Amino acid sequence: MKELAAIAEKIRNGDRRALSRAITLVESLRSDHRQQALDLLAACGTGRQALRIGLSGTPGVGKSTFIESFGLFLVRQGLRVAVLAVDPSSSRSGGSILGDKTRMALLSREPHAFIRPSPSQTQLGGVARRTRDAVHLCEAAGFDVILIETVGVGQSETMVAQMSDLFLLLLAPAGGDELQGVKRGIMEIADLILVNKADGDLRAQAQRTCADYSGALRLLRKRPQDPEGFPKALLVSAIEEQGLEAVWGEIQALADWRREKGIWETTRKAQALHWFSEEVRSQLLEELVRDPNLATVLAQEEGAVARGEAAPAQAAAKIVRQFIESNNA
Amino acid sequence: MKELAAIAEKIRNGDRRALSRAITLVESLRSDHRQQALDLLAACGTGRQALRIGLSGTPGVGKSTFIESFGLFLVRQGLRVAVLAVDPSSSRSGGSILGDKTRMALLSREPHAFIRPSPSQTQLGGVARRTRDAVHLCEAAGFDVILIETVGVGQSETMVAQMSDLFLLLLAPAGGDELQGVKRGIMEIADLILVNKADGDLRAQAQRTCADYSGALRLLRKRPQDPEGFPKALLVSAIEEQGLEAVWGEIQALADWRREKGIWETTRKAQALHWFSEEVRSQLLEELVRDPNLATVLAQEEGAVARGEAAPAQAAAKIVRQFIESNNA
Repeated sequence: MKELAAIAEKIRNGDRRALSRAITLVESLRSDHRQQALDLLAACGTGRQALRIGLSGTPGVGKSTFIESFGLFLVRQGLRVAVLAVDPSSSRSGGSILGDKTRMALLSREPHAFIRPSPSQTQLGGVARRTRDAVHLCEAAGFDVILIETVGVGQSETMVAQMSDLFLLLLAPAGGDELQGVKRGIMEIADLILVNKADGDLRAQAQRTCADYSGALRLLRKRPQDPEGFPKALLVSAIEEQGLEAVWGEIQALADWRREKGIWETTRKAQALHWFSEEVRSQLLEELVRDPNLATVLAQEEGAVARGEAAPAQAAAKIVRQFIESNNA
Repeated sequence: MKELAAIAEKIRNGDRRALSRAITLVESLRSDHRQQALDLLAACGTGRQALRIGLSGTPGVGKSTFIESFGLFLVRQGLRVAVLAVDPSSSRSGGSILGDKTRMALLSREPHAFIRPSPSQTQLGGVARRTRDAVHLCEAAGFDVILIETVGVGQSETMVAQMSDLFLLLLAPAGGDELQGVKRGIMEIADLILVNKADGDLRAQAQRTCADYSGALRLLRKRPQDPEGFPKALLVSAIEEQGLEAVWGEIQALADWRREKGIWETTRKAQALHWFSEEVRSQLLEELVRDPNLATVLAQEEGAVARGEAAPAQAAAKIVRQFIESNNA
């Protein structure tokens, strides 16, 4: 426990190696590690609030280049930047730690930047929980901006949005009829749409794409969390480092507006309670799944539900009753 | 229990009064009623699969008129139609039972139609679970089509989509710049967008609106569950009963394609397992919240999480540990 306090102290002082090991601890699936991780989270306490920015974009839109350029831009403004990747489909064995550092070679060498690849868990729920803990640790370590990057597989964008203050969607220029398909749900959560590669031969095409999405955004209902003119589509060139200042300006304007209107605090509070309730539900479910007395009946009931032979409510009641009884025995 | 078997028998024979009382039972929040409801669900067994159609649209688009016209159209095809309303904001006390029958006066008089207003619970989770049970009962009662209508408050559309085979969005014609705002998430789940009121003075405007949304749909990525050309925007006039045959044709074409490709069964199975897992998690949480030993500490931890003083994972672990111990005592 004394050691834990020392690690927590290091993290609070912004020691990147200690932070990195703490994140490895929260990612561990071993239950003794889990207990240590919870103690460490408690010991770190809550730091000041970083700006948590969710970022999504399909492969090939230049996400790594954008994060590198934008991260360097922020570091040059005197800000400390953490990058957390969320990719439920990734497997660490492929060497993605090296991969992430290679793809952001300049940013990873900055003393005020911290880059962390996705946890290797394949279940989105697991990735969500560990990323949430990592965000907590990065705030304790005093980072100013936390970029949470997702590849946009399945529900991962919604999940990242639930731990972000605002959300960026990166798109590539597309031509005429073959306008790239934007995953539908993303329009619900994007605060800024950034059309990347607004450079060289693609510049005009990027402008048209940006105009198309500006038009599409106007078709959608204004959300209560948006000031006039948001969500917005902007042009950037990550490779030529163009448009980054405008992006940062819009981010700050949006964050300031939401802080002023009380939306920032309300959202943070709602997010925290959402994660608390999710954690209680997940941890309870884990206790249930771990119960050796229930393994057989759980498999049976799942089979019956999948085959349509039992109503979900009825099968669930059976399992929960047995779990409570098994704990009372 | 003997009585239960008799009620189940009546439901399976399509007795609407027995069905109506059974739905009242599944909607009850009393825990003894809940146990009876689960027994009744089990006794009813699983009927053949109905076509479950989710339907959303903001107030004023003519949803009631559309359901009445479309419901009557289906009844005239020899089909038995159930209408379930989902409105987490409704309160039964206002007399919405009468309300629903008044607003669909002709359909409610049809012997082959069954109309059920929203359960009066204010929590979306509660409404979701009871509606899911009501769908199960309507299938046991042998209905061919179950229309699940939602007003589109908050997450209710996503919830309805998770218990539907396909989803319709009803829109009203809108002019030029003031194109009505479509809630963003809805584009993720709509299979058919129906522009209503394509009649009289609004006809031309409805045509332009339909063309606009056809264009917007083309900007979005094709989903794996869609054949070529879907999602689709169509014109209807509920009041003049125009376009209903085309809507039914598209619904059948889509359903047939999904059945043929195995998507129908896969989706149904995934939906059932989703509800099972949700039920287990919710019922466990209910047991925890009901535990009198935990009330104080639960309120304390929620407060700490909301104020940002405790990490959600850490607060949850504390609660779950106490719950397990409280059951072991």
